[in-house]
Amino acid sequence: MPYFDAASSAPLHPVARQALLASLDEGWADPARLYREGRRAGMLLAAAREAAAEAVGCRPDELVFTSSGTEAVHSGISGALSGRRRVGRHLALSAVEHSSVLHAAAALEAEGGTSTEVAVDRHGAVDPSAFGRALRPDTALACLQSANHETGTEQPVAEVAALCAAAGVPLLVDAAQSLGRGPVPDGWSLLAASAHKWGGPAGVGLLAVRKGVRFAPRGPAGDRGPGRAAGFPNLPAIVAAAASLRAVREEAGAENARLRALVDRIRAEVPRLVPDVEVVGDPVRRLPHLVTFSCLYVDGETLLHELDRAGFSVSSGSSCTSSTLTPSHVLKAMGVLSEGNIRVSLPDGTTREDVGRFLEVLPGVVAGVREKLGAPAAASPSPAREAPLVVDALGRRCPVPVIELAKVIGEVPVGGTVTVLADDEAARLDIPAWCEMREQEYVGEEPADRGSAHVVRRLV
Amino acid sequence: MPYFDAASSAPLHPVARQALLASLDEGWADPARLYREGRRAGMLLAAAREAAAEAVGCRPDELVFTSSGTEAVHSGISGALSGRRRVGRHLALSAVEHSSVLHAAAALEAEGGTSTEVAVDRHGAVDPSAFGRALRPDTALACLQSANHETGTEQPVAEVAALCAAAGVPLLVDAAQSLGRGPVPDGWSLLAASAHKWGGPAGVGLLAVRKGVRFAPRGPAGDRGPGRAAGFPNLPAIVAAAASLRAVREEAGAENARLRALVDRIRAEVPRLVPDVEVVGDPVRRLPHLVTFSCLYVDGETLLHELDRAGFSVSSGSSCTSSTLTPSHVLKAMGVLSEGNIRVSLPDGTTREDVGRFLEVLPGVVAGVREKLGAPAAASPSPAREAPLVVDALGRRCPVPVIELAKVIGEVPVGGTVTVLADDEAARLDIPAWCEMREQEYVGEEPADRGSAHVVRRLV
Repeated sequence: MPYFDAASSAPLHPVARQALLASLDEGWADPARLYREGRRAGMLLAAAREAAAEAVGCRPDELVFTSSGTEAVHSGISGALSGRRRVGRHLALSAVEHSSVLHAAAALEAEGGTSTEVAVDRHGAVDPSAFGRALRPDTALACLQSANHETGTEQPVAEVAALCAAAGVPLLVDAAQSLGRGPVPDGWSLLAASAHKWGGPAGVGLLAVRKGVRFAPRGPAGDRGPGRAAGFPNLPAIVAAAASLRAVREEAGAENARLRALVDRIRAEVPRLVPDVEVVGDPVRRLPHLVTFSCLYVDGETLLHELDRAGFSVSSGSSCTSSTLTPSHVLKAMGVLSEGNIRVSLPDGTTREDVGRFLEVLPGVVAGVREKLGAPAAASPSPAREAPLVVDALGRRCPVPVIELAKVIGEVPVGGTVTVLADDEAARLDIPAWCEMREQEYVGEEPADRGSAHVVRRLV
Repeated sequence: MPYFDAASSAPLHPVARQALLASLDEGWADPARLYREGRRAGMLLAAAREAAAEAVGCRPDELVFTSSGTEAVHSGISGALSGRRRVGRHLALSAVEHSSVLHAAAALEAEGGTSTEVAVDRHGAVDPSAFGRALRPDTALACLQSANHETGTEQPVAEVAALCAAAGVPLLVDAAQSLGRGPVPDGWSLLAASAHKWGGPAGVGLLAVRKGVRFAPRGPAGDRGPGRAAGFPNLPAIVAAAASLRAVREEAGAENARLRALVDRIRAEVPRLVPDVEVVGDPVRRLPHLVTFSCLYVDGETLLHELDRAGFSVSSGSSCTSSTLTPSHVLKAMGVLSEGNIRVSLPDGTTREDVGRFLEVLPGVVAGVREKLGAPAAASPSPAREAPLVVDALGRRCPVPVIELAKVIGEVPVGGTVTVLADDEAARLDIPAWCEMREQEYVGEEPADRGSAHVVRRLV
């Protein structure tokens, strides 16, 4: 049963499992204690810190383990902001950062600080010079992910780091998605990552803070001395995390190339096998193992369920799969289609056969969902009609507004317009995305009594 | 090799180990996901929450798992303070709370709030009516441990809870030391605990917040919905924590009685076997498995090392064993001797033989340390001298100032005084404690050019 959601959580690496088991017996005592059980635990902790520091490319005393990647991001951002409070309270970040970074930015704003989200292009990458322009005299910190968790697009970290260095602004790099796959470009001031993304256990994150970076931990002090995380260290999991990081990094050379070829195949085949699909994210500057595409006229939640029934575990940035019923902020920032969205992220060891079977199953699953929803066939132009049309999709959720639009577009004379009334948040993203895919013109959004009126002009 | 520091961290319980292993394979995926691996993880998480809630005595939706007991305490206190910010920013707590509580109180004060530490008696217990007097109209929260981590003394939680309820103040009970041993007295509003104290794995704490308690989580929002901890859940460890909590609670009836008898034996035998020892903590209202005593004229660090060499792992609240060179705040608040302090906390399964061997070894170890330090024999009065004496112990660390005092007291005429000059923080506690043990009068402390001058009058 292939699991294709490694970007959410990777199955435990065999090395992590072994290290965890071994240190359950050796590493349960408090490493701060002077007796033998404590000394043994202390040695395990020191060795784990050294191994992790080597993988990260920093000194062991620049690195602490946290209880999750989220905690690493939160304490990294709050510590760096506090450390530079005299400079100002402005945070620069890309619009496609992980939610943990966005939540930290929101917390800063709630406390009276400000932040600037740097826009991304259609592939989801920031433009370094645009990022540079977001750096202000009062910017305390900049945040940029090494690669995006939903699209795999790599960010220009080295270029942005150079601009930050020139402006004297520390840069926090969220390397959660990439650290297991290879080195992070140089120039970061703080780096955060999460073990269960590289096949380590849950419950372990890491935060590296370069010497010389102003850092003032917030909240209650810990017992473990300055720069140490508060609370008792989760030692067996830390040992397992460090061991598996080393192991996956050693395997990454061969495995990255293999997975990149499999993803290339998905990127090439999906649009050939499934009509009306948009593959998103940078085709070249990307993580090796991750690909995202969106299917017109498809409800993401049903698609996930059908793929799950067929044995494939994937995730989605569609609005119908989120608790807030809004599409993923990443897809939104990119301005790409969000309906019928699927993220495939291959764990190490995924076979050609697994991918082949996925490509066999997918077209039928998508077609089945479309049929249930009454989506229009790929090419079914109807005779033209006279009057401007209004399609009422109020109260209907994604992908229905787009399906209703697609059904009537053939009735609109070329050059004429159709107006779609919709109150689903995803329509804002998906109607313009449909227009771009179909080479029609998205005229714009007008306020309406309820929801919005989206005006579309038929061009072809 | 007996490990006698269960109050610091208990070895992993076999049930925890089994549950951890089983859920490594079943519980690595994100429980928020819709596919089968996620659903399976979600079911494990729900079952663990139910089991833990049953042990705690709350509803499953009143309980969250955190990444440590410290995090449970910190987020419990900060959330309760924020939730009642309109009432005021005052915190009432006992003077002998765990450092995580004290650090949270310090963080509150750094932000402009205030706190009141309620004093304890010589056994380390708060007086409920004194605690009640610390509750003010602007008190947002009260904190009281179920039992003390250094002395085992149980606090009058039910009585304090009743006073808090009458005053409309929520009470957070830090049950870290007692939850594995039995139910917590009723009446708490928030409860915090730590899994590795009951034989669960590190990396798991729990925080229960009763419905109706005003609670506003601080810091960046999490992804997991309101009331859930931020970050990816450490599922295998959570499952192991819940399973072992249930197991140790089932075993506690028999095990508590057995360990209580062993501790009673230590409490009775140590003062008989070792001269000049003070056993501290409540002899009756106490945890079953924990006992603390202090040995005059002994350096705690050397004592720990010698016991470690003899095969016994214990901890100490002596100043020389802390990174700050100050004695434990608990012993300080109790006003008892801190030099040569030893905490023995027996893990489940400790045998009569282990304890017997400890009692065999201890007298020789203490005598050896005393001999090395040139401590006075228990009864060696010297002939009286005339003039008031000054003992210069400046720059000398605990237990030297007390040893120097004990050496000369025989030379002081009955009714005369001797002055000890000392700049070691522990002398403040240990010279008065020595006077009490030796039935001499501690006249007081006077400022001196360097350190302090401690004046002692010979009575006997």
